[in-house]
Amino acid sequence: MTNSSTRASVSVLGLGPMGRALASAFLTAGHPLTVWNRTPGRAGDLPERGATVASSAEDAVRAGEVVVVCLLDYDAVRAVLPATGWAGRTLVNLSSGEPAQARALAGWAAGWGIRYLDGAILTPTPAIGTPAAAVLYSGARDAYDAVREAMTALGGTGRHLDADPGRAAAYEVALLDLFATSVHGAAHAFALASAEGVAPGDLAPFAVGISDLLSEMIPRWAEQLRTGRFPGERSTVASAGATLTRLVQAASAHGLDTGALAAAKRTADRAVAAGHGRDGLARLVAATAATRGVPAPPSRD
Amino acid sequence: MTNSSTRASVSVLGLGPMGRALASAFLTAGHPLTVWNRTPGRAGDLPERGATVASSAEDAVRAGEVVVVCLLDYDAVRAVLPATGWAGRTLVNLSSGEPAQARALAGWAAGWGIRYLDGAILTPTPAIGTPAAAVLYSGARDAYDAVREAMTALGGTGRHLDADPGRAAAYEVALLDLFATSVHGAAHAFALASAEGVAPGDLAPFAVGISDLLSEMIPRWAEQLRTGRFPGERSTVASAGATLTRLVQAASAHGLDTGALAAAKRTADRAVAAGHGRDGLARLVAATAATRGVPAPPSRD
Repeated sequence: MTNSSTRASVSVLGLGPMGRALASAFLTAGHPLTVWNRTPGRAGDLPERGATVASSAEDAVRAGEVVVVCLLDYDAVRAVLPATGWAGRTLVNLSSGEPAQARALAGWAAGWGIRYLDGAILTPTPAIGTPAAAVLYSGARDAYDAVREAMTALGGTGRHLDADPGRAAAYEVALLDLFATSVHGAAHAFALASAEGVAPGDLAPFAVGISDLLSEMIPRWAEQLRTGRFPGERSTVASAGATLTRLVQAASAHGLDTGALAAAKRTADRAVAAGHGRDGLARLVAATAATRGVPAPPSRD
Repeated sequence: MTNSSTRASVSVLGLGPMGRALASAFLTAGHPLTVWNRTPGRAGDLPERGATVASSAEDAVRAGEVVVVCLLDYDAVRAVLPATGWAGRTLVNLSSGEPAQARALAGWAAGWGIRYLDGAILTPTPAIGTPAAAVLYSGARDAYDAVREAMTALGGTGRHLDADPGRAAAYEVALLDLFATSVHGAAHAFALASAEGVAPGDLAPFAVGISDLLSEMIPRWAEQLRTGRFPGERSTVASAGATLTRLVQAASAHGLDTGALAAAKRTADRAVAAGHGRDGLARLVAATAATRGVPAPPSRD
């Protein structure tokens, strides 16, 4: 345990699994810690490790120089936070939400003179306090500077993106989109493999290889989207569309939900219709638009 | 260039991008090579590098001890292959298809006394001939033994899975499912980020982090599916469902296709309805079944 006398006092409001992981990391790093949860009895071993349990959100705010909030959503945050008692404190909201909600809460905080930082946690609870943790922040730079040292307790990569308080939530919603869709793809692939008699443990090493291909593909796509060049030498939109037709049939034959594959197929069809069938897969990005016409950025190929 | 006198003669039928990559790898490894394509003029620089261009599929089969076929699908393979002239030769079909198609083609080959091996290429064309290549084989062991050394020219990992000729295709269809769905997720995430004002190059490093999370998750899921224990300490089916509701709204607000997110949400809802809301995400595998009741394997939690 580090000497806590030099550490900022921290309060954590919200003791779900993530809130408890955050609280634990602050304790481990030697911060005087106060915790609060709407439903009592969720503090686990935090009190015996030195945390004070506040009896109200107001008391918790009063106890911390850094007030970290991690609740289910922004509505819960608004329902819980007091408007006063914030002098010299910084509110760090790590609850999940949309960019517009982050901006609205930042506006509310500004109205009460509360220093506000919005954050997005990109890693699961076991990563908190380890080098694998990743947390993005956005909002006024002075708010970030006020809490930066305390937030190093969470481990890994902490990064201030932008003064726009909605920016961290914008990253988060896009990354959750990728995560949720890929998780669905993994679940679907394990189910399809099982239906074909392939055990999960046999599929897994090769499925990791596919995921690794994605990790290589993503920076290549970013570069192609930047330059507007979409070479089709690895794989083309048209061949992806043909593969998807097969996959929809195979999944359907085994009684699996084909919604995701059908959406991917529609996207490939829209890209082909826009004249991009021979281009690379990064062309699919613009074709995910369902209700607008497919934009056809100028190609330099 | 390696001395070719000790290398088996190889024929490659089908000179799409993957067929050309295969042919190039066999040349580089020093195999006497014959190539054929239904539409002439697709051999690129292969002739000047020493390949013979056959004027018919029959001639190509006659020229190779190892006859590698890489066409659009199994129908194309059946349309192209002669039934005779195979004495002492082995047919290696690397075209994409369903397990049932692979078994049917193996049956056809057996009827004509043709030694048959089915294969699935798991990596994109640039990986062929490099350590990153991965090719799975299934079918009679003696067929694999007959071509094993020649197939090392393709590089990386080659593996014989099973005597069932449909097994490689079973792996392939599940892995393509994962790849296609994840690619759609990546395209969707880049589009959603752009709609929120986040540039592709800024999102990419964090998107790679999400893909890396998937790579860590997959072996954990395989173990949970094996043991029938689905601990919810990292993240739960219920919280994934709540997140998906938000994501559908966010994507819809930006006019994006919400089909994949909606399918993921339905899957989470089915798992919750089956009583698995507090379990971990591997519970989603059984819930991808759309038309059957959701099986509820015994939980040991």
